[in-house]
Amino acid sequence: MDTRSQMKLFTLNSNEPLAQEISEILEVPLGKSKVVRFSDGEVQINIEESVRGDDIYLIQSTSQPVNEHVMEMLIMVDALKRASAKTINVVIPYYGYARQDRKARSREPITAKLIANLLEKAGADRVISLDLHAPQIQGFFNIPVDQLQGIPILGEHFKTKDIQNLVVVSPNTSSMNRVRKMANILDAPLAFIDKRKAEPGQPEIRDVVGDVEGKNVIIVDDMMDTADTVTIAADILHQNGVNDIYACGTHAVLSDPAVIKIEQSPIKELVITNSIFQPEEKQIDKMTILSVAPLLADALLRVQHEHSVSVLFD
Amino acid sequence: MDTRSQMKLFTLNSNEPLAQEISEILEVPLGKSKVVRFSDGEVQINIEESVRGDDIYLIQSTSQPVNEHVMEMLIMVDALKRASAKTINVVIPYYGYARQDRKARSREPITAKLIANLLEKAGADRVISLDLHAPQIQGFFNIPVDQLQGIPILGEHFKTKDIQNLVVVSPNTSSMNRVRKMANILDAPLAFIDKRKAEPGQPEIRDVVGDVEGKNVIIVDDMMDTADTVTIAADILHQNGVNDIYACGTHAVLSDPAVIKIEQSPIKELVITNSIFQPEEKQIDKMTILSVAPLLADALLRVQHEHSVSVLFD
Amino acid sequence: MDTRSQMKLFTLNSNEPLAQEISEILEVPLGKSKVVRFSDGEVQINIEESVRGDDIYLIQSTSQPVNEHVMEMLIMVDALKRASAKTINVVIPYYGYARQDRKARSREPITAKLIANLLEKAGADRVISLDLHAPQIQGFFNIPVDQLQGIPILGEHFKTKDIQNLVVVSPNTSSMNRVRKMANILDAPLAFIDKRKAEPGQPEIRDVVGDVEGKNVIIVDDMMDTADTVTIAADILHQNGVNDIYACGTHAVLSDPAVIKIEQSPIKELVITNSIFQPEEKQIDKMTILSVAPLLADALLRVQHEHSVSVLFD
Amino acid sequence: MDTRSQMKLFTLNSNEPLAQEISEILEVPLGKSKVVRFSDGEVQINIEESVRGDDIYLIQSTSQPVNEHVMEMLIMVDALKRASAKTINVVIPYYGYARQDRKARSREPITAKLIANLLEKAGADRVISLDLHAPQIQGFFNIPVDQLQGIPILGEHFKTKDIQNLVVVSPNTSSMNRVRKMANILDAPLAFIDKRKAEPGQPEIRDVVGDVEGKNVIIVDDMMDTADTVTIAADILHQNGVNDIYACGTHAVLSDPAVIKIEQSPIKELVITNSIFQPEEKQIDKMTILSVAPLLADALLRVQHEHSVSVLFD
Amino acid sequence: MDTRSQMKLFTLNSNEPLAQEISEILEVPLGKSKVVRFSDGEVQINIEESVRGDDIYLIQSTSQPVNEHVMEMLIMVDALKRASAKTINVVIPYYGYARQDRKARSREPITAKLIANLLEKAGADRVISLDLHAPQIQGFFNIPVDQLQGIPILGEHFKTKDIQNLVVVSPNTSSMNRVRKMANILDAPLAFIDKRKAEPGQPEIRDVVGDVEGKNVIIVDDMMDTADTVTIAADILHQNGVNDIYACGTHAVLSDPAVIKIEQSPIKELVITNSIFQPEEKQIDKMTILSVAPLLADALLRVQHEHSVSVLFD
Amino acid sequence: MDTRSQMKLFTLNSNEPLAQEISEILEVPLGKSKVVRFSDGEVQINIEESVRGDDIYLIQSTSQPVNEHVMEMLIMVDALKRASAKTINVVIPYYGYARQDRKARSREPITAKLIANLLEKAGADRVISLDLHAPQIQGFFNIPVDQLQGIPILGEHFKTKDIQNLVVVSPNTSSMNRVRKMANILDAPLAFIDKRKAEPGQPEIRDVVGDVEGKNVIIVDDMMDTADTVTIAADILHQNGVNDIYACGTHAVLSDPAVIKIEQSPIKELVITNSIFQPEEKQIDKMTILSVAPLLADALLRVQHEHSVSVLFD
Repeated sequence: MDTRSQMKLFTLNSNEPLAQEISEILEVPLGKSKVVRFSDGEVQINIEESVRGDDIYLIQSTSQPVNEHVMEMLIMVDALKRASAKTINVVIPYYGYARQDRKARSREPITAKLIANLLEKAGADRVISLDLHAPQIQGFFNIPVDQLQGIPILGEHFKTKDIQNLVVVSPNTSSMNRVRKMANILDAPLAFIDKRKAEPGQPEIRDVVGDVEGKNVIIVDDMMDTADTVTIAADILHQNGVNDIYACGTHAVLSDPAVIKIEQSPIKELVITNSIFQPEEKQIDKMTILSVAPLLADALLRVQHEHSVSVLFD
Repeated sequence: MDTRSQMKLFTLNSNEPLAQEISEILEVPLGKSKVVRFSDGEVQINIEESVRGDDIYLIQSTSQPVNEHVMEMLIMVDALKRASAKTINVVIPYYGYARQDRKARSREPITAKLIANLLEKAGADRVISLDLHAPQIQGFFNIPVDQLQGIPILGEHFKTKDIQNLVVVSPNTSSMNRVRKMANILDAPLAFIDKRKAEPGQPEIRDVVGDVEGKNVIIVDDMMDTADTVTIAADILHQNGVNDIYACGTHAVLSDPAVIKIEQSPIKELVITNSIFQPEEKQIDKMTILSVAPLLADALLRVQHEHSVSVLFD
Repeated sequence: MDTRSQMKLFTLNSNEPLAQEISEILEVPLGKSKVVRFSDGEVQINIEESVRGDDIYLIQSTSQPVNEHVMEMLIMVDALKRASAKTINVVIPYYGYARQDRKARSREPITAKLIANLLEKAGADRVISLDLHAPQIQGFFNIPVDQLQGIPILGEHFKTKDIQNLVVVSPNTSSMNRVRKMANILDAPLAFIDKRKAEPGQPEIRDVVGDVEGKNVIIVDDMMDTADTVTIAADILHQNGVNDIYACGTHAVLSDPAVIKIEQSPIKELVITNSIFQPEEKQIDKMTILSVAPLLADALLRVQHEHSVSVLFD
Repeated sequence: MDTRSQMKLFTLNSNEPLAQEISEILEVPLGKSKVVRFSDGEVQINIEESVRGDDIYLIQSTSQPVNEHVMEMLIMVDALKRASAKTINVVIPYYGYARQDRKARSREPITAKLIANLLEKAGADRVISLDLHAPQIQGFFNIPVDQLQGIPILGEHFKTKDIQNLVVVSPNTSSMNRVRKMANILDAPLAFIDKRKAEPGQPEIRDVVGDVEGKNVIIVDDMMDTADTVTIAADILHQNGVNDIYACGTHAVLSDPAVIKIEQSPIKELVITNSIFQPEEKQIDKMTILSVAPLLADALLRVQHEHSVSVLFD
Repeated sequence: MDTRSQMKLFTLNSNEPLAQEISEILEVPLGKSKVVRFSDGEVQINIEESVRGDDIYLIQSTSQPVNEHVMEMLIMVDALKRASAKTINVVIPYYGYARQDRKARSREPITAKLIANLLEKAGADRVISLDLHAPQIQGFFNIPVDQLQGIPILGEHFKTKDIQNLVVVSPNTSSMNRVRKMANILDAPLAFIDKRKAEPGQPEIRDVVGDVEGKNVIIVDDMMDTADTVTIAADILHQNGVNDIYACGTHAVLSDPAVIKIEQSPIKELVITNSIFQPEEKQIDKMTILSVAPLLADALLRVQHEHSVSVLFD
Repeated sequence: MDTRSQMKLFTLNSNEPLAQEISEILEVPLGKSKVVRFSDGEVQINIEESVRGDDIYLIQSTSQPVNEHVMEMLIMVDALKRASAKTINVVIPYYGYARQDRKARSREPITAKLIANLLEKAGADRVISLDLHAPQIQGFFNIPVDQLQGIPILGEHFKTKDIQNLVVVSPNTSSMNRVRKMANILDAPLAFIDKRKAEPGQPEIRDVVGDVEGKNVIIVDDMMDTADTVTIAADILHQNGVNDIYACGTHAVLSDPAVIKIEQSPIKELVITNSIFQPEEKQIDKMTILSVAPLLADALLRVQHEHSVSVLFD
């Protein structure tokens, strides 16, 4: 006999296939709800079954169109709170606006923090996310945040390929700790692409720092948006005599015309996850999409059954 | 000598012409800021002049596309707060999502309240708005809300026309107090369109309640979205032997194909305000657009100089 | 075996008979507590049994004397919170101060919102109420509000009477949606009493808008305080050749001398509920009091057992 | 030239004469406002002049009827906040419910804290009070509290009388520090009345601890409600051979029949302040009422002109 | 079968032996956690077992070094909250900074309130404490506070000694209610030490008020820090011809050189509790340490099983 | 004539010389206050001049002993708030606990966020800091944070030295963006020290990635605590044939025995700032201490006079 309160999954519009996959793994059906968009753009959410006293897991990536997806999420959380859900756990596989995580210049907003504040105000009790752009975003919240790691999934993929003479490359000087983690998994040395000021009027100069000539490389980033960073890195590596070039990243935003750039780049294989839904027309041949559904499903189960999630953090 | 802190106006993307007009009346230039929209839909706001210690008036209607405009507004408020603005006064000529102001059915969100909560959380100090769909929305806020009235502006327009044999008509049973106010201005009797259940499988039946035959009428609503309400009312009034049919409303959402419906309806003149920006293609001949800029400018000045705004409430 | 936390009912001084009736339906005894009023008017509340870890349902209408009843309620909620109740559900059959729900004039308080804020601050987790004067009052709260409907109870009463030639009448232009709902239940047409400005120095003029001559009518309001609105409406309807006049309303405040006015009016039957306690001397012959206890008891049970309350909303 | 924001005084119903007196000392007129009480007991507050941008000082003792006065105060603070007052300074000469400042028994409320929470939630920016029953009540607030002292005013009165052979007596074991302060002003020794358990079924036994025989005494308390404490103390002192008996206290609640008890007691003179308004019929011959208006006026002026208030604390 | 959530005990560095004793009584092992102090003084806390969904009882006296112990406690509460503990119950046998509970002079902090605010902000759900310096400190919190009483434990000890001719003495005019409670337990009369101003330049004069000559006395205080109060009181009592002098107090801070002063004083036995850990070198022969572990363990069990704690309050 | 509110500087115990230097630059004396530490470790703060209505700048690095300095800061902020300061600007040249800015492992606290929450709760209105360990810490606050940059001060020092054949080196893979900024100032290439897993049981392997042989290098970090990172980097660089080795960092925690390690390392010059006070015995010959007082003074002046601080951000 189980007197625990009931686990219910809900999804919104950003990544229903992922939610469906999680639902199938957990053998918990997706809750009935409808997102209606009126002719003037206003969103109306109808939750079509009782949630009173239930533990809700709401799955929504705040991917493009990000403002629509954020507002859907906030409105749904408000509706769930007013409908007397017991706990509202917001599962955000891809946390949008994460790059706006500090005042890089004067008078900038810190939108990643604003989103955190809005979520808490709307009534979220917990956030479950994946590879936050900066791990400090956990600290933007006063509620518990479980941050899962995509690098092990990506790393496992490359491990099975058993690539020889491998160097792991960071395409810039940001987040090199994440790249170092991948290098640890693959037991490979590190290099990075440095970008420095040139003469006035000239473009920045990019150099490879580290030993890559004649090697096979994996470029590692947490997200790919315009794909400029990764394709420029690939070009420079190519110019520096690298053999096979792989690239990977958890979150594939792939704003136009990112896919074309990748297609035309010397990248041999691009490995991403389904944290963001990819429409068929973006799924090019050299792209491998790994699913994060098993990882998320496992995390949700542990949260619901109050087991430690820590085993999923590494 | 004036040691008062400085008044600064800012606008975002929803209704720049109105902001410009207010700026000209107040002889206060619009502050320099830029709203950049990245290829993935994320909004980046750059405030390009100091706001430290200033009293900011941020003008933004949350009209279509409402989610974009709401997020722009929240991000800007966050940026202003972190840039040490002294006070952040948000001027929302048209307050979107206002119709979601109660749980009409089970498990509905109250999105008009959610927006209020989000604005306060982001850092707004005061809201100045116009003809809120329900006056109770003022009570959704814990910060001061100055609600201005559009009915006197619309009423003044009709008063100068000196229409004879006039009846003021409410197109439904909602908000008849607002219609009564118009009738008071024009010293005219009232009627309304009633909508009642029919036999199963039949459409609802609409009747005119009140004496309208051979009269000229003005249909009064606070907002027109699909324009169904007002054009159906016009048809019924027309069938009931009404002569000239005028219609008016403060907020002209006019989602497609509202303009076509109005064009084809027996409405002789539609009077609206510029609380929502109307692109040229929507400005049809029978439409009269009155400006709320003088009213708003006056209110802003009074707030800034700490004079009573009450004279503007009636 | 039931491991659910325990449901406990408490009441205060405003409507003990209703609480008693709910207690009997639910077969849950009223919790032991005492409200002592000191000689200087201070209220001291003693909860005389443990509430640690229990789900508390506190029943209190904020009827006359409203300030005493509001303060009793707030003090009790504070006591329950500090005594470690698990949840505090405040059942407010009649929500006082509900008419102060907006700034009708400059510098007015919004006391209905203030009460909401005070309740949340004191520690309430949920509110269960009945026919809020404006449905937007739900949005004054950040906690869940379950609003039950009295119209179906009143409507059922009239339906069994099977009155012929019926017209449902709104005594003013406020809240006509509620009157429309009654008309739907009884499948009857609508009329309303319009109030318009007269010549300076003359009283307002009231007209019946709609067809009522020779008909039987039911005047519908949500609450009756001085009973001026309903008795003046009855007089006008009488003058307009109406036959039988019924009146109804959920909340019978009936401040003196409301009962006398009703007694002397052409109203044949006044139907109210026991959301507000009526002392014997106010219970005149033409008054029918329907009990809301079964409705409230059902709602409490559903909340406690985490079933959907939605079935009670219509 | 003074660009400081304007100081405005408002009062409510509890102690208008004191507010008037403060107004005259400060040469600042009382703001125009009206407290309307509807027939059903609801309070409606109308502020009849602009308060936008002003520094408001709202004077209200929460004396009997305490719940009415508390609610008036909260509603007024809400109205002032929504009317855009710059700061709301609540002047509470007598802070009611102050004796409910801890859980003396299980499941008791801490109503003095609740009132503090409600005031902050309503929108108060600062509290100015006098002789709080326990000084720890300052810590119930997160906003600044200026607590003024009444003992020096009472002490000054007795000093000018130059009473010989004086002993200062505490009527119980509470708050002996306050009594010690009076003894310091008058350079007199201390005694107190002890209350101890008797045999089962017998009343408590009260003893004088300290040397009082043949002396003149002043009984000092912070407040007098039923006057039982002070008159019983007077009787015991009288039985113990005391000569002249004086009594004093800042706050004279004097619930019926306190005045009769004092009249009939061996107390020669009772010295109180006007922190609570005394109707004429309570002003018996042996009562001396000292005004706290000069002290409060001085404090308000210092707050407004941002001078230190500390000189008024001792 | 027990579906209740799990009870877990954790302790930090201030009083591990007491936590160990409670753990043994409850037969609940102390949770695994480590407090690491880096070379620069920063505290790092590692919780080494899952706490997800558990009811946590964190035992920490905020005794010397108080700032270290307060910060440890706050950091641990933050960690527990982020690790998804269900409830965080902070057990503070000795609540430090309790003497800073009011503004005794201008511009003083109210640090006892600040600590309360910090604990709530960090995420505490409930506080269980013992003999708070002022009972009003309960009101500094918005969360439930269970305050246990040490006087009965101390009183029981003296009751078994059956001391004849006993007088209970308060060493000053503060908190005489607590001393009165001890006198009630032992059925003894009261006396106190009065401290009054002397001629300028002379030390304060201390007198015994009450009849103590030839009696045995117990000096009662809630806490002993420098031990000045209690040892000076002992000297004066000794000079006033008292026979045996006992002293007691719940919280033995005993800052250096308190122990030496007590050793050299005429006090025959000092009775304290283990609310604060005493290192061996401070445990002198005349000191009796009573354990509060059974009292605390009982309280924790009652909280966890949601039984009334009230039986422990007296 | 200046009607602006008054600027007052206060300092506590962590870095009085820096506060003194800022005071001299600004020609604003340090406010009178005293931090008393009682024998039991409790801190008592006395503010010895009025702060009512003033703009306070409180200067305190939360350096070692960090918990004492944090608590001093919080208590002072509480005191200032209760003493009616107009604004409380907390100047934290070195923000301690900044390395605990995310959950690096399960069940870790995020102490940098906790400190932010505590500061806001205590009453801080703004934070001014220098080189936060992660720029995202700005987002831990809801109040404005002005983050100043130390790199330009350090960079200017090296620029005047005109070192040839320079390479700027990051001692690890964290925060390489900061190192890149230094490289931009000095127009030099980049290298970094990589740390990778070795065979089980073997120490980690550190490699230099980038071209450093025969070059002069500057190792750049934001803070130096145990100095392990920087001295190990120096050793490795030395083994890789580097000529002159310089090192720099804004915050010199220098926990024992960091100074000895630096003394014995191949580092030629260590350049730090006075964000943390260095006692004389730590000021070794090869250490150069640059003052951040002019930078901070300029920022304070701009905040007070409401000028843009942005010019100081780069």
